[in-house]
Amino acid sequence: MEATFTDLNTPARLLLGPGPSLVPPRVLRAMATPTIGHLDPAYLSVMDETMALARYVFQTQNPFTLVLPGTGSAGMEAALYNFIEEGDPVLVCVAGYFGERICEMVTRARGDLRRVDAPWGQVVTPAQVEAALKERPAKLVAIVHGETSTGIAQPLHEIAEVVHRHGALLLVDTVASLGGVSVPVDEIGIDICYTGSQKCLSAPPGLAPITIGPRAEEALANRKSKVQSWYLDLTLLRKYWGPERVYHHTGPANMIFAMREALRIVHEEGLEARFARHAACAQMLYEGLEEMDMSMLVAPEHRLASLTTVCAPAGMDEMAVRKRLMAEYNIEIAGGLGVFKGTCWRVGLMGHSARPENVVTLLGALRKVILQ
Amino acid sequence: MEATFTDLNTPARLLLGPGPSLVPPRVLRAMATPTIGHLDPAYLSVMDETMALARYVFQTQNPFTLVLPGTGSAGMEAALYNFIEEGDPVLVCVAGYFGERICEMVTRARGDLRRVDAPWGQVVTPAQVEAALKERPAKLVAIVHGETSTGIAQPLHEIAEVVHRHGALLLVDTVASLGGVSVPVDEIGIDICYTGSQKCLSAPPGLAPITIGPRAEEALANRKSKVQSWYLDLTLLRKYWGPERVYHHTGPANMIFAMREALRIVHEEGLEARFARHAACAQMLYEGLEEMDMSMLVAPEHRLASLTTVCAPAGMDEMAVRKRLMAEYNIEIAGGLGVFKGTCWRVGLMGHSARPENVVTLLGALRKVILQ
Repeated sequence: MEATFTDLNTPARLLLGPGPSLVPPRVLRAMATPTIGHLDPAYLSVMDETMALARYVFQTQNPFTLVLPGTGSAGMEAALYNFIEEGDPVLVCVAGYFGERICEMVTRARGDLRRVDAPWGQVVTPAQVEAALKERPAKLVAIVHGETSTGIAQPLHEIAEVVHRHGALLLVDTVASLGGVSVPVDEIGIDICYTGSQKCLSAPPGLAPITIGPRAEEALANRKSKVQSWYLDLTLLRKYWGPERVYHHTGPANMIFAMREALRIVHEEGLEARFARHAACAQMLYEGLEEMDMSMLVAPEHRLASLTTVCAPAGMDEMAVRKRLMAEYNIEIAGGLGVFKGTCWRVGLMGHSARPENVVTLLGALRKVILQ
Repeated sequence: MEATFTDLNTPARLLLGPGPSLVPPRVLRAMATPTIGHLDPAYLSVMDETMALARYVFQTQNPFTLVLPGTGSAGMEAALYNFIEEGDPVLVCVAGYFGERICEMVTRARGDLRRVDAPWGQVVTPAQVEAALKERPAKLVAIVHGETSTGIAQPLHEIAEVVHRHGALLLVDTVASLGGVSVPVDEIGIDICYTGSQKCLSAPPGLAPITIGPRAEEALANRKSKVQSWYLDLTLLRKYWGPERVYHHTGPANMIFAMREALRIVHEEGLEARFARHAACAQMLYEGLEEMDMSMLVAPEHRLASLTTVCAPAGMDEMAVRKRLMAEYNIEIAGGLGVFKGTCWRVGLMGHSARPENVVTLLGALRKVILQ
C-alpha cells in the first residue's frame, strides 16, 4: 500500500449536538489504562463496581443490570429482541425518529406491531396508550423517554400505570436522558430500561447500560424460543456479568474502564445536583436564544433539558450556520431530523457538555454567525 | 448509595492468553484523544483511513470493508446473519469451540444447518467439505481459520476451491489469526471475512473489522427478507461507512481511533515482517517448552503461530499453575476449553505480545512454578 498515514490529528470540538458529549479528561485517562483480560479477577471487580454504579444512575435495585458491548442502538435491539417472540403483540409509542427505529426493530424481531403516534415535538398521552391496549392487549409497550429527534421529555408515570394495569411490560429508551434528567426506574416501574454511554453519562460512545426488572426477568425465563441475537442474548450476558462468570464475549475492558469512571463522576456529583445542573444550563440556553428572538420547538412543560430543538429563523440556511459554527468556532450542534430537517437545530447540553461556559460560548458564536 | 469507589487501580498484566493481547502505548494514547462526533468531517476521514488500513491487513481490494461496533462475536453474528435467510442451507466446518458457536448462530438465524467435524486439535479436510457439498449443496460454507480453542491453523486454499466449485460462499473467521498469520483474502477467494480488534491486531477489545467480497455483495443485494439484526445490518452499516454517510449508530470514535493506530502500526511494520515475528516467537516458545519436556497438542504442520496449546504434564493441576503465574508474575495465560479443559494451557503470542522478551519471561516463570 503506497499511502502514508500520519499521527492522529483530530480537532478539539465543543460537542453541543445530540451526542456524543464532551468526555471528561478523567474518563479519557481511565480508558487509556492498560488492557486486562476479560476473566481477570481485577476486571471482574471493575465489572461489579460498574454494575453497582449503573444501578445508582438508573435509580434501581434490579440485580439484573449490566453494560452491553455495543452502542445505544445495541441497547435498543437487546431490549426488544430478548422480550419479543414471533407473533408477540407489541405496542410502540412513536413521537419521533427513535420511536420509528423501535418499530423497525419490532418488525425484524417478528413481533406483531401496533403503534400509537404523537405529532413530532409532542408527547404521547396515557389516554392514547389506554385506548390502544383496550383495543388489543400487548405483551410489551415500548416508549422513548427523551426523543433525540424532537427534544421532548415523555412523561412516564401515568403511562406506566396504564401499561401495568393491562398486564404488559414497559420498555423505556433513555438514551438521551439518563444521567441528565431523572429516570427513577423502580419508582416508575419500568421493566426494561437502556441508555447509551455517550450522552448524559459522558463516556465515549460504544456501550449501552441496561437494567431488567423482576417482571421482565420472569418473562425472559418463560421464553419458548431462543433470542434471535446470540451477541445480545441477555441470559448469556448475565451469566458473564453475574456470579457464574461464564465466558460469552471478550469484555471491552478499556471502554468499561471509561464507563466506570464516567459513572463514578455521576456518583460523586450526585443525581440531584446533576439534574439541577442540566436544568439550569437548559434554562440559560432558552433565555439566551429568546434574547436573539429565536424560539424553542417544544412547549416548555415537555422540554428535555439535555436536548433542545431550536427553530431556525425563517428563511435562514440552517446548515450554513452549523458549518460556520464548526469551521470558525469548533462547535458541533446538529440539524433537525425527519420532519424538522432544514428548519431546526438540535443543541445538546449533556453530561460534561452541560456547563455554563459552554452555553455562553455557543450563544456568543451564534450571535456572531447569525446577527453579524 | 453508601459505597465508595476508588480510582481505577488495575494491575499491569503480561497478556499471553488467547486475547486480549497487550495494547501498545501508542494505541492507548490514540484512544484517549478527545471524542468527536460521528458525522464530523474529521471523524469521517479517520473512518476512511481505517478502512484503507483494514484492506491492507485483509490483503484485499474489497471496497466493502469496514469495522463493526462490537467484539469479534458481533463480527461472527454479522457475517452469518447478513448472508442467511430462513431455510438457507449452510455448511459449517467444526473443529473446536468457535465452530460450535457458528453452528449455534446459524440455528438462531434460521439457517438449515449441516456440519462436518474434525476432532479437536485437527483440521477439516477438503475431501470432507467436498463430500458434504456433493450430498447437499449449500449457500454458505463457514470455517474458522485460527481455532482459538485448539490452536490449529486451518488450511484454506483447497477448501476455497471446493466451495466455489460447488457455487457456495466461503465465510472465514480470522479472529485469532488476522495480523499474525497471513490471510490473503483475495488470493484465497474468501467471500466474507471478519476478525476481532484485540488479538493479533493489538487494539483493545470491542471492535470487529470485516470485509465482503463481490460474490457476497451480490448475495446481500439479492436477499428477499430483511436481516434479522438491525444493529449489524451490513447494508445499513455500509451506507454509514460509504460515501452516503447515512447515520446508523453513533460511531465509537475512541475505539476507532485506537483501531486506526493499531492498524497503522501493522502497516509500518509490514505484513511479512509481522508474520515472521509471530512465527519466530512461536518457534522460541515451542523449543523452550520442549526443553522442559512439555509437548504441544497440535502437530507441527497445523500449528497456529499466534496461539499455542500446550499439554500440561500428566497429573499436574493446570489451574493452580495459571493462578500462580498471575499471582506471582502477573502473567495471564488460559486453560483449555471444551475437551481440553483441565489438561492443557493456551498461550497467545499475538500482536504486541509476540515479542522475545515476553517468551523468555513466560518460560522463566513456568520453570519456576512447575519445576521448582
